[in-house]
Parts: sequence; C-alpha cells; structure tokens
Amino acid sequence: MVGKPLAAIVSAGCTRFGRLEGVYARELFAEAFKEALDECPNLDPRRDIEGVFVGQMAGEAYEHQGHWGPIVSDWTGLIPAPSIRMENACASSSAALRCAIFAVKSGLVDVALVGGVEKMTHRTTSEVQEFLGLASDHPFEQFNGLTFPGLYALMAVAHMHAYGTTEEQLAMVAVKNHRHGALNPKAHFQKEVTLDAALSSRVIAWPLKLYDCCPISDGAACLIVTNPEIAKRYTDTPVYIIGTGQASSEIGLYERETFTSIPAAKVAARRAYEMAGVTAKDVDVIEVHDCFTIAEIIAYEDLGLCPVGEGGRLVEEGRTTLEGDMPVNASGGLKAKGHPVGATGASQAYEVFHQLRGEAGRRQVPDAELALTHNVGGSGATAIVHIYRV
Amino acid sequence: MVGKPLAAIVSAGCTRFGRLEGVYARELFAEAFKEALDECPNLDPRRDIEGVFVGQMAGEAYEHQGHWGPIVSDWTGLIPAPSIRMENACASSSAALRCAIFAVKSGLVDVALVGGVEKMTHRTTSEVQEFLGLASDHPFEQFNGLTFPGLYALMAVAHMHAYGTTEEQLAMVAVKNHRHGALNPKAHFQKEVTLDAALSSRVIAWPLKLYDCCPISDGAACLIVTNPEIAKRYTDTPVYIIGTGQASSEIGLYERETFTSIPAAKVAARRAYEMAGVTAKDVDVIEVHDCFTIAEIIAYEDLGLCPVGEGGRLVEEGRTTLEGDMPVNASGGLKAKGHPVGATGASQAYEVFHQLRGEAGRRQVPDAELALTHNVGGSGATAIVHIYRV
Repeated sequence: MVGKPLAAIVSAGCTRFGRLEGVYARELFAEAFKEALDECPNLDPRRDIEGVFVGQMAGEAYEHQGHWGPIVSDWTGLIPAPSIRMENACASSSAALRCAIFAVKSGLVDVALVGGVEKMTHRTTSEVQEFLGLASDHPFEQFNGLTFPGLYALMAVAHMHAYGTTEEQLAMVAVKNHRHGALNPKAHFQKEVTLDAALSSRVIAWPLKLYDCCPISDGAACLIVTNPEIAKRYTDTPVYIIGTGQASSEIGLYERETFTSIPAAKVAARRAYEMAGVTAKDVDVIEVHDCFTIAEIIAYEDLGLCPVGEGGRLVEEGRTTLEGDMPVNASGGLKAKGHPVGATGASQAYEVFHQLRGEAGRRQVPDAELALTHNVGGSGATAIVHIYRV
Repeated sequence: MVGKPLAAIVSAGCTRFGRLEGVYARELFAEAFKEALDECPNLDPRRDIEGVFVGQMAGEAYEHQGHWGPIVSDWTGLIPAPSIRMENACASSSAALRCAIFAVKSGLVDVALVGGVEKMTHRTTSEVQEFLGLASDHPFEQFNGLTFPGLYALMAVAHMHAYGTTEEQLAMVAVKNHRHGALNPKAHFQKEVTLDAALSSRVIAWPLKLYDCCPISDGAACLIVTNPEIAKRYTDTPVYIIGTGQASSEIGLYERETFTSIPAAKVAARRAYEMAGVTAKDVDVIEVHDCFTIAEIIAYEDLGLCPVGEGGRLVEEGRTTLEGDMPVNASGGLKAKGHPVGATGASQAYEVFHQLRGEAGRRQVPDAELALTHNVGGSGATAIVHIYRV
C-alpha cells in the first residue's frame, strides 16, 4: 500500500550548474529561489514561509563564511524567518529536506523553503580536494593523504575483485550520464562522451579516470515544501514525499566491514521503501549519488535495483538509460549535471519534481509516477533516500 | 494558558567546560553522552534512539573535520542511527534541539539524541578569533578585520550612548556570573571576581575588557529528547519543552536598523512565549547568551525582563542574581561556565533540566517551575528561545 504523503513540494528552483564566475554562494541561492518564486505565483514568501532549511557543506573553507541559515533568509528577503543550516557533507541538502519534512509534519511549520548551495570553482583543484576531504576522517584518512578519488578507488578495486566489475562498465556509467546531461540545459557538461574517450582519459586514482569523476561545480537548488493538506493552494500538481530514510555508517572507510557496498544506503533505502509502502520495482525515475562511476554501480545494488554484484552488468545491459526499464540519473547525475556539494540533494529533488510533473523536456521519462533520490555524504557515512509520487 | 508539551527531555549529560587537553571533539561528545546514559537506565540506546541532531560550529577550522553527524553516531555506538549536523554559529545546538522537537512532534522519531560540541583551546587565540569570525559577514565584516569583541563593542557603545548604560553595569554582569559559576562544578571558571578586578582588567575592544568577554572553552553537552507521551518510560521527572521560537536578523551588524537590541531575539522570544502561553513574568530560571556582558544586558530587554534601556539598572539592582526575583545564568553563563560554541545551547538546556528537577546543588533556584533559554548566533543573525516546565 502506497504510504500517506509526509509533505508536498509545490515549487522548485535551480541555477545552471557549472563554472559560475564572479558571484558569491548567497547570490546563487537567491537566483535559485527566484525561479521557485516565479513558478509559484500564489506564494507570498514573507507571509507564508515559516522556516528555512539550507544545506551547505563547506562555505567556511570556500568563502571563509559560516552561519548560512540567516544569510539565506537575508538574501531571499525572508528576514525574520527562522533558518537552520545543515551540514552532512555531500548529503547536506537532503538532510535539510528531511528536517523540513519533520517540521511540516509536526504542524509547527506549514510552508518551508529548503535548499542548498556550494560555490567551489574559484578555488584551486588541490584546495577543493582538501575541502572535500573534510567529509572523511581526519585522524586516519585526511591526515594520511587519502582523497575522495582515493577512497572511491578503494571501493572500485574491492568491487572489481569481488564481482568482476570492469573498467569498461565503470566508463559506461559516464557515457550514459553524459548522454543524459546533454539533454539537460542546466547541466555542467552538456556533451556526450564516447566509451573510448572515457577509458583513455587520464588516471586520477586507479581504476578511476578523469571521466569516472564528477566535476567541481558551482550551483544552488531549492524547493518549496508544504504540509500536504495545503499544497493545492500553491499548485494544481504538487509532488508528494511519501518516504524518507536516513542512516549512518562509520565515518572512516577503514572502520567498515565492507568496501563493496554502503551499509548506510541499504538501511536508508529499506526505511524509505517501508515508509512509502513500495519496492524498488515500483520506482519509475531514480536519481543516485554518482560522485564517481563506481558509486552509481554500488547504488544500484544498495537500492535493490539488481542483486549484489550485478551492478556492472545492469549498466552494460542499458537498463538504466533513459530508454531502459529503470532510468537512473536522467538529469545527467553528479557526473554530468555537476556536483556543487551542498546543492546536490535539493537538485535531485528538483529533477524528480519536474519528471513527475512531466516537465523534464527532452530527458522526460514517460509516464513517471514514482521517483526516488539517493544522496550520499562522504564515502557513505551518511545516506539519505527520499521517495516521491504525483 | 500554559501550552501543551512539544517534547520532553528525559536525561542530559555535559562534560566539564574548560581547557580539556589531548582529546578530540568526538571524545568529548562521547563523554557527555555517557553521563546521559548513566542517568537513564531504562534507555536502550541502540534500540530506542531513532535520530541524532548535533550542533557544531566550526570543526572544519578547529580540527579540519566536518561531517559531524555520523561521527557522533559512530562515537556514541549508535550506528546506523541517522544523524544530522546543524550549524547556526553559537546557536548550533539550540538549532539541533529545535529540529529534534520537529522530529518527535512529527511522530517520525520517538526518541532523539540532541547535543553539541566544540574543541577550541588547542588553537591560538588569534586562530580562534578568525574561526569565530566565520559567523559574521565575510565581505564587509571579517574581511575588514572586525572581530566578535569588536562587533559587541559597537553594540555596547550604542547602548551606552542611547541609555546611559555604564562600564560598571557591564562589569556587574561579570561579577554576578562569576559568583554563580563558582557554584557550578562543571564551569570553566569557578572563582569569584571583584568589581574592581573586572573594571581594571585589560581592554579588549573598548568598552569591553577581559572580564566582559566569555572564555575560549572546550566541552560537549547532550540531551535525550522524546515524544512527551512516552517520557515516563525513561524518568519519573521529565522536563517538558512547551515553546520554541527562532528568528533571523541580517548577517551583518551594519545591515541592521539598531545596534542596541537583537531584533531576531525579540521575535524568537515573542514566538516562544505565545506558543508556551506564558510571559516573561512567569519564568523562574533563565539562561541567556552572555558571550559578552553587553549581550546579557541586551538579552534582558529583548526577552522583556525589563523595559528597553533599563537592562543596566536590572543587574545593578541585583534582580538577576541567584537571590533576585529573576535569576539569570545560575550556571555561570557563557561568561563563567564557558562557551564551547557548538555545545552552548545544549548546555543551557542541561542547566534548566537540572534546575527544574531541583538537582542544581548550590546554585539551585528554589521552587523553579518554568525556565527559558536564549541562545544567539553570531552578532544576532540567529536567535533561538526555548521554554520549559516540569
């Protein structure tokens, strides 16, 4: 039985993702908010919005700026609206969405602004590697020079060793997501790549090559989230959230029993499916956290899209393309759409909001009625899964 | 009419605050959690705790470590419990408490662990000033060298100019809170200071002298928060939260119409009083955010303990001492108890939890039945007020 709505999304906004020069993160958030406002003429933001929940990973490092809650209230014109900033690494804005669900379901907040932002490209690649490393364990990982490409490379090698996953299968994830990204006018990369180009790109951390890694991007995304009972005041076609699941794994990859799955993602998915009253088979549109190609393959398995060990074959058989029976990352995913870290979770929800309303243009999944987003923080210490329906 | 309980606190833990050497922040949190567990034998943490909400301001800067949600789940033995980190500068763990209230009131979480932590004293004072500055506006404040003592000095000068508040009245806040702190075995400073010593201490940012400033401290505090209907499973004497109010002001002090009050605190207090169905007069025990002595005087006015402009007289008349008719900062406040930033909000709740249960030892306010905490982020861009009753 499909679960009762926990909350509704009535509007959404997103900047283009990419190298956006000469702006502060706060300006990007305001731009995303403007789209959400423009799409929702019945919303009187200063009257209606009772709570702001904003995800951001590391503005402290990128812009020497913390305290993002009130900055967002300020730059969206919502002062004195209360605003809380969530940081769960790359899952920060999914954490913000989860808290907004708590808030509207509690009855204490009827309408919430949820979003996320990260401004990254003005820093050097080595600075960004250092700042992303904040999401891994300092004493045992960062301190010893283990970067995120390195962490996911360890997971890739373990998966190849355990299940025979190949470098070609990894590259196929990149080829697929670039093809999808080419159909998304907000994607960082809007061009296709060939399997040969992906396989022959330079090694970043073997077996991961340049095209196995998501780019460093700037961007912001936001959602207007309401109590489901009042959603139709704002739109005739709200999207309902019917499941939320979150779980934690140990912060250090070295602490975990397995490198070939993300245990937190399995638990988060199980909780979300149970709450929503659906199974993996029921889902029409899926956005997963493909920070590296191996992460998408592991996500297939953790979400139950295929048996453990068969993620490589799933992409090889073309089943997760737009034309396949379980389209994954129609948006282009982190790989091609880009990964402005704090914005990623909200941008996944932005994508499924439009997919479920039939507004996804050339990348529309036909007749999509049920959607899932899967957002991972760090090397999997945080995982958050949300399930949506029309 | 006194409002219905939103949530209940059934146990609480707190480390000693001060210079705690040779430990990571995560270890401090685990120590605070151990006290909460020891005090709550009916709690089976791995079975019962369904959500963790942790406040931390700037572990990224102090320990080059982010992603505190799962770190706390890990070091409290709660994996795979979902865990979200909130950052609202010095109000981070009050933001965590507020999200936990949403979570338990939503019915999606029955028992939550809420807490906060900051490890600061291993860094130099100038580093700490830089890191605290993350809570102010970078482009116009930090970048130009405006520190937090500087920001609050501007507020103090404005208050002196507008209302005749004196340096002696500022120093009286320090004398009072040190006297209270001397009765608190967990306080950073457990010794009294004289008015002369406070007034003749060295100038930090005129009119603020050393004794007008809270110390740099390490510490952690946590709470076990439950749905009020199940609180008595865990304790015969729960403390109920009956009001929560939060508001935002502009991030930059320069953007605001007034320097003599914190507009966000006024709005947060009004919302909390309305929700709780009480007024300032009804409150028996009050913990306010006295990061600097002027902040306590402004808090008196913002909370409605006295008319605007009369905060200085209120402390001069002794009305906010332990023996006065409206005791403020029985714990010693940030001034004497210490201010490990992310822990402060949770430690205020820890104090009133014990005050309302009659467990506050030599600093007990007799017959306390209603309590209020007031926690400010930055120079007042965030303010969060909670109201509690037995």
